Amino acid sequence: MLPEANPFLSCLSKNAEAVHFFCNYEESRGNYLVDVDGNRMLDLYSQISSIPIGYNHPALLKLLQQPQNLSTFVNRPALGILPPENFAERLKESLLSVAPKGLSQVITMSCGSCSNENAFKTIFMWYRSKERGHNNVTKEELETCMINQPPGCPEYSMLSFMGGFHGRTMGCLAATHSKAIHKLDIPSFDWPIAPFPRLKYPLEEFGKENEQEEARCLEEVEDLIVKYRKKKKVVAGIIVEPIQSEGGDNHASDDFFRKLRNIARKHGCGFLVDEVQTGGGCTGKFWAHEHWGLDDPADVLSFSKKMMTGGFFHKEEFRANASRYPHLISRARGRGTFCSFDTPNDAIRNKLIAIARNKGVVLGGSGDRSIRFRPTLVFRDHHAHLFLNIFSDILADFK
Amino acid sequence: MLPEANPFLSCLSKNAEAVHFFCNYEESRGNYLVDVDGNRMLDLYSQISSIPIGYNHPALLKLLQQPQNLSTFVNRPALGILPPENFAERLKESLLSVAPKGLSQVITMSCGSCSNENAFKTIFMWYRSKERGHNNVTKEELETCMINQPPGCPEYSMLSFMGGFHGRTMGCLAATHSKAIHKLDIPSFDWPIAPFPRLKYPLEEFGKENEQEEARCLEEVEDLIVKYRKKKKVVAGIIVEPIQSEGGDNHASDDFFRKLRNIARKHGCGFLVDEVQTGGGCTGKFWAHEHWGLDDPADVLSFSKKMMTGGFFHKEEFRANASRYPHLISRARGRGTFCSFDTPNDAIRNKLIAIARNKGVVLGGSGDRSIRFRPTLVFRDHHAHLFLNIFSDILADFK
Repeated sequence: MLPEANPFLSCLSKNAEAVHFFCNYEESRGNYLVDVDGNRMLDLYSQISSIPIGYNHPALLKLLQQPQNLSTFVNRPALGILPPENFAERLKESLLSVAPKGLSQVITMSCGSCSNENAFKTIFMWYRSKERGHNNVTKEELETCMINQPPGCPEYSMLSFMGGFHGRTMGCLAATHSKAIHKLDIPSFDWPIAPFPRLKYPLEEFGKENEQEEARCLEEVEDLIVKYRKKKKVVAGIIVEPIQSEGGDNHASDDFFRKLRNIARKHGCGFLVDEVQTGGGCTGKFWAHEHWGLDDPADVLSFSKKMMTGGFFHKEEFRANASRYPHLISRARGRGTFCSFDTPNDAIRNKLIAIARNKGVVLGGSGDRSIRFRPTLVFRDHHAHLFLNIFSDILADFK
Repeated sequence: MLPEANPFLSCLSKNAEAVHFFCNYEESRGNYLVDVDGNRMLDLYSQISSIPIGYNHPALLKLLQQPQNLSTFVNRPALGILPPENFAERLKESLLSVAPKGLSQVITMSCGSCSNENAFKTIFMWYRSKERGHNNVTKEELETCMINQPPGCPEYSMLSFMGGFHGRTMGCLAATHSKAIHKLDIPSFDWPIAPFPRLKYPLEEFGKENEQEEARCLEEVEDLIVKYRKKKKVVAGIIVEPIQSEGGDNHASDDFFRKLRNIARKHGCGFLVDEVQTGGGCTGKFWAHEHWGLDDPADVLSFSKKMMTGGFFHKEEFRANASRYPHLISRARGRGTFCSFDTPNDAIRNKLIAIARNKGVVLGGSGDRSIRFRPTLVFRDHHAHLFLNIFSDILADFK
């Protein structure tokens, strides 16, 4: 249960008797952590940067005691299926109100590792969709993915930096390179690893050396992208922390990140900024990447810790491609609620309409192969979701 | 935010107007889920099997409102470093009180995916430690693991079953084979996948066919273990669900599992039973594997959902090997608090003692190269952890 040493605690613990491992969280307040013997400690480490506004902040305690929040905690809603009431509105008021520039979409997750794992998957799906160039998933892809083989499971890679830390699940771990103890004995992916700048301090004395060091690292990033493309392990994305935290608080200049972002764009790689440790205000901006001053700072951005939930923001173009049944559905079109799509022929169209009716959904036909929607003007989002849910099943089972 | 269709809901939703997606959790009670329009539904799906004793059970609501539980929720303790007061006792009273046979150790996790990811890692580390046969981690291993390459990251595999579901992070996903939509476009590992029995019903009519079907699957498991060993992707572990849930509620006989467990033992593979969906009482026993009637049912067992926390149980021999600094420490020995270990020579021994003293820890020497512990009889666990923490850092920095 105590897998690793904590260097900060050891540093504090010169007076060994003053530091214990077990803590009394009920008594802890604000910046003060109380240990099991009642010792009050000024906590500058805050659960590895996870306490946004102090221990037991009265506003948070009050929020948690509200009946709707209590019930969300004890009932564990399966968010993808049965979200709590006003979930979309709650996301708008909270996470989406601090969405990074250009990232209009958010997915919530339990922790930082899950956030990065799913950010990787989002980038892989986006890249594959670009590479495919159309929506026709082949039978071979559907079959090979079930046995972990290409082309269904393509041999894509994520480029990461030496010294980076992105979590310890197997995908994240393949992009993590901060300590051998995290990685030893665990199988991994052959993914490219670039050097992260090792700046010399004070910065004002080493301007030229540091500039050269950053240029060297960026050159290596481009070389790796080319090299891995050649060996058929295309770099679908680049992941980077604005400040490498677990790896030793390694900084790079804003200019380094601006150039790195451009390299990602130039080579068509998704740019994933990991703000799990830097997000939530602790670098003087809400997100650390704001220091770079970019209008298009990231394609995907992961968070957790001080945000009090995990998750990731992403651009709209990174939404999973909805064209799951290209052999059944095409030419989706519409204005407002006046929508329609085509099926391959009138036999299939009529059969789909009949099955839908048996499952409680009334649809209309038009032309020789189209299905049309003519809902009322009080049609709400949840009706659309209800339809999509039922119709997805119909398509999945359609023979 | 609504990534997938839910077949059960669609089945319920023949009366389409009666089912909505957004739910009022505060109003839900016991077996009844209340939707956003106030409709009360008998919920037989319970958040994909995650509600152990009904919505808003008064005992759970009361527990969550107790100050020490409220404060644990808002303060998010970093469990490996600063566990809450009496954490070990709480684990004993709760999870360890229902530990499966022979699995005396437990690690808590946030969700089922993280539980399986870490169960995999535990098995890989255990297997590597067996294979190594000694505690000398080489410089090459420490260096190659940082760049994802063997021997530091060995090319081990986990054997899984077609139709199995173990989560969607990249490690879990490599062992998951229930639906193409989970896996398409995501890079994966070349790991062996065995067929899971497809039993014919009613069982009493197909006794012989089903027996042959199970024998065929078990034979394939052994063939795959041999085949993957030959291609240098040694099968370190086997993961299986007692009932394949996401894959279609596929059952196999107790005898199948008893034989599978024996195969794992025979070939030295860690046997990981995934009880994320079957655990917590829903199969008529607390754990589904209890139906097998085995004294040694598993090496590692993962759980989540109805257990209201994720995690995994494991045998004591699956604890991470503590021999991290074999070049500095050897011959650890002791009785009670009367303990000691050897260092390579008296110069190193004396230097370690001096550094420890500077960090607030008093140690004694004995013989020409030993360090001895002679703590008081009121020495407590947390003092031991404090020492281990400080001394781990000393060893990590020792030059």
